[in-house]
Amino acid sequence: MSTIHRDLLLQQLNWRYATKQFDPQRKIGSQDWAALEEALVLTPSSFGLQPWKFVVVTEPAVKGKLVAASWGQQQVADCSHLVVFAAKKNIGETDIDEYLGLIAAVRSAPREALSGFRDMMVGGLVNGRDGAARYTWAARQVYIALGNFLTSAALLGIDACPMEGFDAARYGEILDLDRQGLAATVIAAAGYRANGDKYAALKKVRFQKNQVLAAV
Amino acid sequence: MSTIHRDLLLQQLNWRYATKQFDPQRKIGSQDWAALEEALVLTPSSFGLQPWKFVVVTEPAVKGKLVAASWGQQQVADCSHLVVFAAKKNIGETDIDEYLGLIAAVRSAPREALSGFRDMMVGGLVNGRDGAARYTWAARQVYIALGNFLTSAALLGIDACPMEGFDAARYGEILDLDRQGLAATVIAAAGYRANGDKYAALKKVRFQKNQVLAAV
Repeated sequence: MSTIHRDLLLQQLNWRYATKQFDPQRKIGSQDWAALEEALVLTPSSFGLQPWKFVVVTEPAVKGKLVAASWGQQQVADCSHLVVFAAKKNIGETDIDEYLGLIAAVRSAPREALSGFRDMMVGGLVNGRDGAARYTWAARQVYIALGNFLTSAALLGIDACPMEGFDAARYGEILDLDRQGLAATVIAAAGYRANGDKYAALKKVRFQKNQVLAAV
Repeated sequence: MSTIHRDLLLQQLNWRYATKQFDPQRKIGSQDWAALEEALVLTPSSFGLQPWKFVVVTEPAVKGKLVAASWGQQQVADCSHLVVFAAKKNIGETDIDEYLGLIAAVRSAPREALSGFRDMMVGGLVNGRDGAARYTWAARQVYIALGNFLTSAALLGIDACPMEGFDAARYGEILDLDRQGLAATVIAAAGYRANGDKYAALKKVRFQKNQVLAAV
């Protein structure tokens, strides 16, 4: 099995930064983009439930509306692909049963063998949890996808800018998320940095290892 | 600049799985582990604020206590390194000022030039947000670190198992997190799969692209 060397991993994690200015002419190639979509699909989640949808925006008119709902941040328009990470707002038994049906189909497993797993998910996520608590859980899962996406993009040499500064309610309207039971939770612009982006040259600011790591 | 090929990224994302049984004899080498710690440090976060601490547990006696606080899940004991992703419970102006001091030092920037950035962070995260809302934000950031960690480990050929099934309050006591203003939010066991782990051979279950991705 071929893996990568740790130095290459760290090189690319140091290379990446929250890109403020994208080159609006440079688009991510279709094969690289297909790989990043596949990476999103492969994101791990609690129970494997995948309580999300990734809305990929490339249409200029839609991007224009989203810029206005993002405090005018131009990355949303100038990037190659904008990913809106949407989380299920009110995960319930229907979602769990859909997932169990998928497991049974993929693994040729009898549905009855999954009843203990069903009880665990319903007990842990649905019973006794109101909508807010369910969304709290789903929103966290979406951030796993964000972390995976940012690292995956960096390894392919693709720039990205994760963003929380947007109006989730307006995103929901523009992208028709409410009707699907989804909420825009976080977004990431992806593409290639503009030559002139002064943020690319700034030194990365991270706490020292001993401030954020402890060994026990 | 050297990057990796998209096929290698997808190969490793397909190779990884939530490892249920670790080989207790196999430890992650010190250079690979140092790289994974560095990857954690490099994780992006909103505003760059890094509202977290990563507690790395290798001490068998401590692992034993944590197994008991993790519904007996043996991965916690058998893994090489257990990472407890802890989030700041009540981020405030002190944290923000510490971070601004770091920026000023790393980038040799005058502190006054950062006052607008300070206002933005205090306004967005502290003012008008109670402790629960601050923790909601910090906990999400920690999941970026989790996503980054899982992808980074997979690329190095290191197995991992992310877990939400543990008693956060007891973890807090065992690892003395409360006193530091931290809460155990999610954990990941890392190491190498045991030969006999039957979960390694199961087909990965993911929704189809058209179920979780939309193009606009």
